[in-house]
Amino acid sequence: MALALALPGHAAESGVSPAEIVATAPAAAWVTIAPKDLLVMDLAPDAAGKGRQVVIQLMPAPFARGWVGNIRKLAAAHWWDGMAITRVQDNYVVQWGDPDAEDAAKAKPLPKDLAVMGEGDYVVAGAPPSRGPEKDAYAAATGFYAGWPIAYDKEGQWPVHCYAMVGVGRNLSPDTGTGAELYTVIGHAPRHLDRNIALAGRVISGIEHLSSLPRGTGALGFYEDPAERTMIRQIRMGSDLPQAEQPQLQYLSTESASFTRYADARANRRDAFFIRPAGGADICNIPVPVRVTPQ
Amino acid sequence: MALALALPGHAAESGVSPAEIVATAPAAAWVTIAPKDLLVMDLAPDAAGKGRQVVIQLMPAPFARGWVGNIRKLAAAHWWDGMAITRVQDNYVVQWGDPDAEDAAKAKPLPKDLAVMGEGDYVVAGAPPSRGPEKDAYAAATGFYAGWPIAYDKEGQWPVHCYAMVGVGRNLSPDTGTGAELYTVIGHAPRHLDRNIALAGRVISGIEHLSSLPRGTGALGFYEDPAERTMIRQIRMGSDLPQAEQPQLQYLSTESASFTRYADARANRRDAFFIRPAGGADICNIPVPVRVTPQ
Repeated sequence: MALALALPGHAAESGVSPAEIVATAPAAAWVTIAPKDLLVMDLAPDAAGKGRQVVIQLMPAPFARGWVGNIRKLAAAHWWDGMAITRVQDNYVVQWGDPDAEDAAKAKPLPKDLAVMGEGDYVVAGAPPSRGPEKDAYAAATGFYAGWPIAYDKEGQWPVHCYAMVGVGRNLSPDTGTGAELYTVIGHAPRHLDRNIALAGRVISGIEHLSSLPRGTGALGFYEDPAERTMIRQIRMGSDLPQAEQPQLQYLSTESASFTRYADARANRRDAFFIRPAGGADICNIPVPVRVTPQ
Repeated sequence: MALALALPGHAAESGVSPAEIVATAPAAAWVTIAPKDLLVMDLAPDAAGKGRQVVIQLMPAPFARGWVGNIRKLAAAHWWDGMAITRVQDNYVVQWGDPDAEDAAKAKPLPKDLAVMGEGDYVVAGAPPSRGPEKDAYAAATGFYAGWPIAYDKEGQWPVHCYAMVGVGRNLSPDTGTGAELYTVIGHAPRHLDRNIALAGRVISGIEHLSSLPRGTGALGFYEDPAERTMIRQIRMGSDLPQAEQPQLQYLSTESASFTRYADARANRRDAFFIRPAGGADICNIPVPVRVTPQ
């Protein structure tokens, strides 16, 4: 008894659930994500010896171009191999990079040709092609661009700090970060970071390997004892892996009719569990569906 | 380099951070939480043998009265002792209760005098005494009531599914749950559950012991192997513990001038890390500060 809780995919006379809309979306509504746009992170195995792989999709143009370019260079240089998860702050972020980054004598040198971006690069011109919720606490409106959650106003558009989005750690402004220190969101959307830190991607597979890590007990959730860190075995571009190991993933086109129905159903739940549809949703409560490409 | 990220308490010429406002709030702005309103859950020790305690504050009148009454009875009956965490769904909820609840032959009998509530009890009359963000994707407006996040419209007011809020698992409507199956939010606020499930409290200490648990691999994040569950050693009302073990906690009065300043600073970050204040916040991005009572 009483175990059902917002049961995805529950069949109901009263309406169709978001999960059912996704499950029955036509093949044409799914967009294959090229392995060259994926960053594949292999962590040290867990205590039981099981592998832990996290797959990150990088943001497409016109967003975050300089940072995404740097991330590709860092992966090509195998820069993250042997680095670590250094910070896990509850209801906020998991961060990884060089544990010695702040010690000039010990820090691992960065590739020499990394781009330097400015704060102006946090926002780009235009508005997203498909509309999300207009009632937003942080922006004039929201929308979706090629599978990504976007906010916008008359000054332009910018990606949104939803759960699992990946951003670029930085020091105090005007530093905007290189991309060597990355974090992902593991709690309620910290939208106050929008336009203050660059977003460069999002975790689309394996976030549980990050979100379930022990929280750090130091300031900001940094681990106090180096032994608490989780080691990164390697980070590679998906296209640099052997063919058989390249992730095969698709997202539901945010410009498809199926996505429009899905987003509407998220805002107005009509499946049997629900008594009272909310009549609205915030953009981070409409996660873009991702699936393994059917064979 | 590049490790700072929204540094709480960071001193800055440009403005005062939310953490600084909280740290300097006068003693009169803090409200002591009576141990009789706390539910103290002791989990089995972790792999290293360390204790894991989770403290839940129960909702005050006029909210969730029947469910809170049931929860008090279940704790008094030591009903949860030997029960377990049965479900951990990433970016959603951790749930605990009787693993055999759905098996009539094996389910643990409930206390006989539990109240039965109706769906009308999800909403109560009136509006909260202090105002939160008015721009909300789910309700006409939001506010705070005695330390709790509330949404409201002309029909009444109801508590909000923010991170760490504790709700009452139920089966399909018109069942509204007894309080024996509880869950807490460990991801982006699932506001579509507001007014569809009862909220009865929130975790105010030790949420990391729940949010960092391994995710279940079954449907809805239920553990497939009983060995994966985390056992509950006991759940007690705080006032039923020996005096020295009663949690001593306070929350920042949501009706205080300090809280108004804090909420404003959350929506308009002026500390040095921030370039561009958001100019807004959603209610779940203004968590009510809690501290250990100073001695």
